[in-house]
Amino acid sequence: MQVITKPDTIREIIKGVKKKGMTVGFVPTMGFLHEGHLSLIRRASLENDFVVVSIFVNPLQFGVGEDFERYPRDLERDRELARSAGCDLLFVPSSKDMYPQGYATFIDVERLTEGLCGASRPGHFRGVTTVVAKLFNLVSPSKAYFGQKDAQQALVLKKMVTDLNMDLDLIVLPTVREPDGLAMSSRNQYLTSEERKEATVLYKSLLLAKELVESGEKDTHVIRKKMGEVICTAKGAVIDYLEIVDTKELKPLDLINGQCLVAVAVKFGTTRLIDNIFVEV
Amino acid sequence: MQVITKPDTIREIIKGVKKKGMTVGFVPTMGFLHEGHLSLIRRASLENDFVVVSIFVNPLQFGVGEDFERYPRDLERDRELARSAGCDLLFVPSSKDMYPQGYATFIDVERLTEGLCGASRPGHFRGVTTVVAKLFNLVSPSKAYFGQKDAQQALVLKKMVTDLNMDLDLIVLPTVREPDGLAMSSRNQYLTSEERKEATVLYKSLLLAKELVESGEKDTHVIRKKMGEVICTAKGAVIDYLEIVDTKELKPLDLINGQCLVAVAVKFGTTRLIDNIFVEV
Repeated sequence: MQVITKPDTIREIIKGVKKKGMTVGFVPTMGFLHEGHLSLIRRASLENDFVVVSIFVNPLQFGVGEDFERYPRDLERDRELARSAGCDLLFVPSSKDMYPQGYATFIDVERLTEGLCGASRPGHFRGVTTVVAKLFNLVSPSKAYFGQKDAQQALVLKKMVTDLNMDLDLIVLPTVREPDGLAMSSRNQYLTSEERKEATVLYKSLLLAKELVESGEKDTHVIRKKMGEVICTAKGAVIDYLEIVDTKELKPLDLINGQCLVAVAVKFGTTRLIDNIFVEV
Repeated sequence: MQVITKPDTIREIIKGVKKKGMTVGFVPTMGFLHEGHLSLIRRASLENDFVVVSIFVNPLQFGVGEDFERYPRDLERDRELARSAGCDLLFVPSSKDMYPQGYATFIDVERLTEGLCGASRPGHFRGVTTVVAKLFNLVSPSKAYFGQKDAQQALVLKKMVTDLNMDLDLIVLPTVREPDGLAMSSRNQYLTSEERKEATVLYKSLLLAKELVESGEKDTHVIRKKMGEVICTAKGAVIDYLEIVDTKELKPLDLINGQCLVAVAVKFGTTRLIDNIFVEV
């Protein structure tokens, strides 16, 4: 496995790979890899001849007062994990190379980015779409892999790919969970042991929503109220949002109808966790 | 020469072309081709194995009250001109295929788009960068050709290509002029015969600026004042802007220093013409 830091270098390597007729799969990450990332890399390795993983803690997608500075980093560990999951090239660019002085170009996906995490984190998705477009242009993959845990991100990126006529398939794989149901996230690492125990309320509330829907409840206000009660059993939990939205435009729904996304964001101290689940009637 | 209207079709054709190891040159236009466009197509034909020309009057880059509806269109004539200049594939997409219902993704280049035409035409460059990125993704050229007449557009697009790590060379070719100096433009067609005669004041004012600089004048206020006097000899002329800016950030200058861009926009009735020239000390 090669480790590359320079954009120009990766472009040249990819050109060589493509000249040999090999397909390129790509897994963009912010590092501190967990089983969720590894499931993406393994799938990319199954479906492509050459797998690129990027590790870049993208300053553009962090707001003022968010956790850019303290976001966990461990390149040595990541390198070994990525390699063992089937990564052929690890791309670890610097902020300076990604956003040189005078950088001025930004991509916005409108509407889909307004609610959920977009409402809580202004500018976040602009940072995500911009960096992912840059990485796509450098790696030119035929397939790129993202996790369902970041449901809104996946939808926003799919929209960008379609709208800008980018020539690649964006593949979204299921959220990987800890044995007690907590969605894997690099940010789980921030939790105190008490918060870690309490953090299971996110998935518990989602499972409750699923049960309620399966037992015939269609009123999203009722479902959300009961979910909120589950989350509030955790003393340290502060709800950021708790929404039931359609899966195309992410607009809040009054009644469950067809496939819906139930999405929660909860803060424990300074740590913000998200999770989601699809429900369907 | 093939004429293609569907985005998916052109993508497949280009894939076939590239598989043969051929290089692709691209000339995006809004049609109503003139000698300026043809000079780009001829150069593309010299430098590439396969030349794509697009004709798309992009609604996104026209503001309210601008000339989108009446922008001149003549596909039959354009087809013959493009073919004779060396075009291999003419891409003529519909607005509906380029911006299907629910379209939501936009690209912004900040700062460079604030002055000159960006100040007169809010949203114009967002429309230009967005459509050109889409076309680049569909055609994936190794070289793309633009005219120097749209100096700010060329700089903005170069910035987008660099910032978003797009893998292509953007080549800017000199403005082609009528025998009396008027820069070729599809919009010249709007001019009455009286306005057409008067429209030579744009280039005359630019030549005067060049002469003044060559004779030692460095004060841009003096130069702009004298240019304004030349333009005002045309009764129908209304100055939109008349600027002397640096060639990197397009910021107005007080003193000529190094290479500068002298740029004018003048309205004759409802017709807005632009022109520019480089000067250097």
